[in-house]
Amino acid sequence: MSLEVSQKITIQKVKNSKINQVDFNNLPFGQVYTDHMLVCDFENGKWSSPKIVPYGAISLDPSAKIFHYGQSVFEGMKAYKDAQDDIWLFRPFDNQKRLNISSKRLAMPELPEAYFMEGLEALLLLEKDWIPTTKDSSLYIRPFIFASGNGFHASPSDKYKFIIACSPSGPYFGGKLKVLIEQHYSRSANGGVGFAKAGGNYAGQFYPTNLAIQKGYQQVIWTDDTTHEYIEEAGAMNIFIRINDTLITAPTSDRILDGITRKSIIEIAKDQGIAVEVRNISVHEIIEASDNGSLKEMFGAGTAAVISPISGFGYQEKDYVLPELDNTFAATLKKQITDIQYNRSADKFGWRYSVK
Amino acid sequence: MSLEVSQKITIQKVKNSKINQVDFNNLPFGQVYTDHMLVCDFENGKWSSPKIVPYGAISLDPSAKIFHYGQSVFEGMKAYKDAQDDIWLFRPFDNQKRLNISSKRLAMPELPEAYFMEGLEALLLLEKDWIPTTKDSSLYIRPFIFASGNGFHASPSDKYKFIIACSPSGPYFGGKLKVLIEQHYSRSANGGVGFAKAGGNYAGQFYPTNLAIQKGYQQVIWTDDTTHEYIEEAGAMNIFIRINDTLITAPTSDRILDGITRKSIIEIAKDQGIAVEVRNISVHEIIEASDNGSLKEMFGAGTAAVISPISGFGYQEKDYVLPELDNTFAATLKKQITDIQYNRSADKFGWRYSVK
Repeated sequence: MSLEVSQKITIQKVKNSKINQVDFNNLPFGQVYTDHMLVCDFENGKWSSPKIVPYGAISLDPSAKIFHYGQSVFEGMKAYKDAQDDIWLFRPFDNQKRLNISSKRLAMPELPEAYFMEGLEALLLLEKDWIPTTKDSSLYIRPFIFASGNGFHASPSDKYKFIIACSPSGPYFGGKLKVLIEQHYSRSANGGVGFAKAGGNYAGQFYPTNLAIQKGYQQVIWTDDTTHEYIEEAGAMNIFIRINDTLITAPTSDRILDGITRKSIIEIAKDQGIAVEVRNISVHEIIEASDNGSLKEMFGAGTAAVISPISGFGYQEKDYVLPELDNTFAATLKKQITDIQYNRSADKFGWRYSVK
Repeated sequence: MSLEVSQKITIQKVKNSKINQVDFNNLPFGQVYTDHMLVCDFENGKWSSPKIVPYGAISLDPSAKIFHYGQSVFEGMKAYKDAQDDIWLFRPFDNQKRLNISSKRLAMPELPEAYFMEGLEALLLLEKDWIPTTKDSSLYIRPFIFASGNGFHASPSDKYKFIIACSPSGPYFGGKLKVLIEQHYSRSANGGVGFAKAGGNYAGQFYPTNLAIQKGYQQVIWTDDTTHEYIEEAGAMNIFIRINDTLITAPTSDRILDGITRKSIIEIAKDQGIAVEVRNISVHEIIEASDNGSLKEMFGAGTAAVISPISGFGYQEKDYVLPELDNTFAATLKKQITDIQYNRSADKFGWRYSVK
């Protein structure tokens, strides 16, 4: 860590850790929080020095703009611990850059790389014991920035709060997913904020997702809002489909999140000699492939979801079932990406980042 | 008020009012808050009884879903005081209903009408002295609901907080507005949440609005995200245009807020014998009307904005100037709606609501 910034990270430790109250063999996703958090305030046009403080309540005026105008962006990351108890991150600079891309679109201040990385590393070193080593578990990391300034005028806040909180977590999804290809509701507009990890993108998905859940699906696959003909993403993950032996995913756009797992999967698959196409995928192409037997797999990819296989999908009141294959692309690619993440294999791409 | 609910509204008064610190002759918009607020919590599937408490900080866990997933909706209302010191609201049940429409789309619990109305009335009676009587001022009322439950899982919160805060306020805009007809960015998607007063709809507008401000405009007029050919709304207000003597506004849709000022203006104008058309308006029609001299007026309409005349607009790097007329529709309609709101005229539509 560069002394310039790290010197300034003050650490206020908890008196008593609550780690002994946690059952690391039965971790939910994102519901248990570690002892500390990183906090950094933006005020008078600049970010203050990051501080590590006990994890605890935030106090805000009722007029704080986060309550009214949705200025919030976040990232999802994971810290992994290997057999030697060393801590690893996966492509963390990509999260840092994307947080700033999101912030810019929401008219929020960008955060210097050093504040993000050095703050995160200092926090992880302090919370090292919280990183689970049980199978499929990791320390989920949630960096987020929100508008903490006051006022009912619909204009950007003059104050923001950057926080990193950590949660030892089990898998996001349990088992295979049944998804609904949405034909009425939409996640994002052309020229909108769909590419940003902005809070408002998620709230808008909950109601249509609840409708899908009532019909027996777990997630919605969003389609473009103009024609509902091209698949986009699933809100908590990007979508891959396999037709025969070709892996296909939609290109990123101003409507689709540039997922770090997504782009890593593309690179790993190409490296494995798998044919990969990044192009628009029409729902009709998927239906046709399902009907003629060439649709072999669908899966979601994201930091929280990792790689989540899809067992079938609904479209216009009809259900389509994916075949049960051995040696799926999903399983192979999941093994390869998690082996890199947990330091169980060589890292030929240079994606792993050591925290020490 | 029905005793059934009002019995349950507990009131905790401040010891010392801060009203004497306020300069009622120089009120900004939405920056000064009254002594008390109404608070009501949703937990275990139901709303608790509303409480009136001193206006003050709200304490939330860093994992509260409002920070991460944008579940927040709000309303904007005003309380007016007439020459007899009586308090008036304008079509308050429409705000109450729309808050629930917004909540439903954001997968948030709907609030019973009595909790909203009786809570609001009790609060206004307590804050009566805060309602300004200076010209163009009113007590701006901000009812809002946000996700207060915890968790990093991208799913609806299990807890919510409903708050009504009040702010004695001057005009939202000063003077006439120069607006930019947006051709790249968009406010909302077909099948999205544009019709809801959801926090995320506002954050997404700030960056494009900043770009417009840098070019010398104050507001953006949004167009449909598919073609950018049809005008929608301006984010903080609906848009009316006058071509010759016909007043035209876009129909509401799932992308456009069903503004209470908008629909009142339509009714008042019709009642005045003004020809009103509610239909799609293309940008080309506006340009053509500007070029041939038939474009007489443009104005915005909203609770905060009231009726805000537009002096000119930019489109594709070119500026168009609106004529300076005497006896504008904007001025006439503004007088008529505010005369009803402030109890300066008869209320033939039955819109005024007495708080006592």
